[in-house]
Amino acid sequence: MNDKQVKEITSRDEDFGQWYTDVCKKADLVDYSSVKGSMIIRPYGYAIWENIQKILDQKFKETNHENVQMPMFIPESLFNIEKDHVKGFAPEVAWVTHGGNEELDERMCVRPTSEVLFCDHYKKIIKSYRDLPILYNQWCTIVRWEKETRPFLRSREILWQEGHTMHETSEEAKEETLRMLHIYEDFQKNYLALPVIIGKKTEKEKFAGAVETYTLEAMMYNGVALQNGTSHYFGDGFAKAFGIQYLGKDNQLKSPYQTSWGVTTRMIGAIIMTHGDDHGLVLPPKIAPIQVIIIPIGNDEEVLNTTNMIAHQLKDANISNKIDNRDKTPGFRFAEAEVKGYPIRIEFGKRDLDQGLVTIVRRDTLTKTTVKIKDVTNTIISLLDNIQKDMYNRALTRRDSMIYTANNYDELKEIVTTKPGFVKVNWCGNVACEDKIKDDLGIKSRCLIEDEAVDGPCVCCGQEAKVKIYFGKQY
Amino acid sequence: MNDKQVKEITSRDEDFGQWYTDVCKKADLVDYSSVKGSMIIRPYGYAIWENIQKILDQKFKETNHENVQMPMFIPESLFNIEKDHVKGFAPEVAWVTHGGNEELDERMCVRPTSEVLFCDHYKKIIKSYRDLPILYNQWCTIVRWEKETRPFLRSREILWQEGHTMHETSEEAKEETLRMLHIYEDFQKNYLALPVIIGKKTEKEKFAGAVETYTLEAMMYNGVALQNGTSHYFGDGFAKAFGIQYLGKDNQLKSPYQTSWGVTTRMIGAIIMTHGDDHGLVLPPKIAPIQVIIIPIGNDEEVLNTTNMIAHQLKDANISNKIDNRDKTPGFRFAEAEVKGYPIRIEFGKRDLDQGLVTIVRRDTLTKTTVKIKDVTNTIISLLDNIQKDMYNRALTRRDSMIYTANNYDELKEIVTTKPGFVKVNWCGNVACEDKIKDDLGIKSRCLIEDEAVDGPCVCCGQEAKVKIYFGKQY
Repeated sequence: MNDKQVKEITSRDEDFGQWYTDVCKKADLVDYSSVKGSMIIRPYGYAIWENIQKILDQKFKETNHENVQMPMFIPESLFNIEKDHVKGFAPEVAWVTHGGNEELDERMCVRPTSEVLFCDHYKKIIKSYRDLPILYNQWCTIVRWEKETRPFLRSREILWQEGHTMHETSEEAKEETLRMLHIYEDFQKNYLALPVIIGKKTEKEKFAGAVETYTLEAMMYNGVALQNGTSHYFGDGFAKAFGIQYLGKDNQLKSPYQTSWGVTTRMIGAIIMTHGDDHGLVLPPKIAPIQVIIIPIGNDEEVLNTTNMIAHQLKDANISNKIDNRDKTPGFRFAEAEVKGYPIRIEFGKRDLDQGLVTIVRRDTLTKTTVKIKDVTNTIISLLDNIQKDMYNRALTRRDSMIYTANNYDELKEIVTTKPGFVKVNWCGNVACEDKIKDDLGIKSRCLIEDEAVDGPCVCCGQEAKVKIYFGKQY
Repeated sequence: MNDKQVKEITSRDEDFGQWYTDVCKKADLVDYSSVKGSMIIRPYGYAIWENIQKILDQKFKETNHENVQMPMFIPESLFNIEKDHVKGFAPEVAWVTHGGNEELDERMCVRPTSEVLFCDHYKKIIKSYRDLPILYNQWCTIVRWEKETRPFLRSREILWQEGHTMHETSEEAKEETLRMLHIYEDFQKNYLALPVIIGKKTEKEKFAGAVETYTLEAMMYNGVALQNGTSHYFGDGFAKAFGIQYLGKDNQLKSPYQTSWGVTTRMIGAIIMTHGDDHGLVLPPKIAPIQVIIIPIGNDEEVLNTTNMIAHQLKDANISNKIDNRDKTPGFRFAEAEVKGYPIRIEFGKRDLDQGLVTIVRRDTLTKTTVKIKDVTNTIISLLDNIQKDMYNRALTRRDSMIYTANNYDELKEIVTTKPGFVKVNWCGNVACEDKIKDDLGIKSRCLIEDEAVDGPCVCCGQEAKVKIYFGKQY
């Protein structure tokens, strides 16, 4: 490939950060704007987000969640009600101080997350156990005043969904926290082809105001962790702070138990950094806005008729596709198809058709095969399925090959300085050790490993370990 | 009807404003929040908006529009580029002045509309005639710092879509302006059952920065006008202000021509105020989240089996439905079904089933009919269709009966003070007359009537008239 677009993509192994930016731009996913820290999501990038929304929204509705829309502003006094929460978010909110020409009596922040807005509403609508559970979700934009930003990964404005639920008992709320964590895990595995490690965050890393935070940790091509979604159990802390009470079946006033959970456009960043290569983006078929690109070579009538016939057949089989018959060289169009990451490319000219054949190219492996025209649709149906599975399995194998075990501090240091990836260690559970590892080695705790027994002392202090835990560099 | 919920709805003819607020609240469409001027859209209200989005989004995509997502903030210097635009919007924007604890170098407003953000992007992506047309749309929230707010009609935060397009020629841009106006008209007529008058706004009333603004004017039950969508032609004014140029087929640098068009959740307000009655909301079947409510009376096994059978049959026929078998009196459940405006209610008990019958109640007319169980689904399919048509025709007849003609100022004054509705007049085209009518009589120009010939002097000054025009009170 020596066409212009592809040449402009930096090699992934040479400069991963630059490669990422190149792919985001060259694949027309995003553009920068004059608004510092905010990105423009272009049609192709937004179409991926629309697919994500469609699938997740259906899963939320199947599990009886309802969509609502809360205000985007939070008056300062409301924001201040839950102390841990405000402490966690205050440094990174945008403040509105004026409406038109007038200064506001009370300033308001643009929501960085909406727990307090939901609680303010719950206080009015929850009266009795009959009103529970309340299972709400919201698709919206939030704002966090980040200093360093990067398309999809860290932006001042974030498109996301935030679920907020209230339950009679802590058991039910914990069950919901895990239910949504597993819906995210299943979605990321089966649709985005992303292997994720799920587990509980440490006390230090949990969400501001939560009792427990569960995370989905994906590993990017360069071994760096991306926190790709969270699900929080709040206990009744917010409910008490906001005075939310319901009359139980036993006629007693009680506080309900709460959860929240969210995923963002960051998942698009994870797709890019897990599956992309030096030719550009590689999209999993189940999330690709265009699954098949058809590139006819030449203007022969038979070529154009076959192009249209294949496009119709694919459409009838519910396979999204697009014809690229622009007045550009085949090489240019092939290269662009690779940059854009369409899962399958079909190419053919008059000579191929004379033999009754077309060429099919898999984007993930760039493997070419020749198939009979009459077999195109069936071949593509099974190929899309294989690509989806293969992409997941390749990502899983690679991820697993980059998970290491360290038994003591020297081993940990050696691994961190020489091998990108995650490190599994025994830990005493003290924040002092967590902080030391972070400050010395630049890695942060990812999540606790609750289904593996401790098999040695704390990797940091050498005292008795309480739990196994993953560490890793993070975005 | 003497059940509690219904009794709490003020009579529509007694106090229309209070009736509207009661319906919004009692039908669980919205709730007020602690955020002044912002509303909470509750699940039932949001489900109507989701239906609106689904239908319109498909119509936009069928006409080759693509969705994007722009930043929500506009730096002040960017906002200031187009002079008419900033003058129109500056008094009603929310200003962000601080990020975290730091004051911003330049304050930013929350977008009140996104013309300048799109232009800033277009400047980068439009180079050649090959890049045109650009047909973008965005679903998002905008903010306008309104003093007086009312659910759906006027809110500080508005959910809407905004289309922004760029074209090679003014003809194409004008064609697009009208295409989208007609898509809105068709949608409001055929889905929302709302008759609308479409036409051009006067110079005074057009959008800040536009060359021409087309409007959709609906008339509410009380005769007051609701501007229910607009489509703007901008010429190349913004393009020139932003320095957007493309290389034409003739190798000359040219300015492209622009449009924008938008509709908001205000359409839900129009549905309520056009179709609602003293029992509550009345939803057109094509937009109702639940088209049929099934209310079994008693707990007899045959009753419950029939309930489930009907629900399944309706679902198989793609008719959305819900069973209400809560432990409440039939009267309570009937009243609630009426407040919620479900287009059709099915009710039956053991005695009805013994005769092989169920009762079907139309929400729009409250007419009851008895049908054989085996005919339920077919009856409902045609009934939904009839309800949709009848609702439109009733609204149209009522609307037309409230449009008056005034030939001179005395007639105009007489009509405005005695008869709610629109008034059609001849007008000289001078803003002085438009202002006098507004200041004296409290009515504003709605839109020009371009397909009717002038047939008398200006209703205000008595000089030669240039055009016919509608006036009316407005929300």
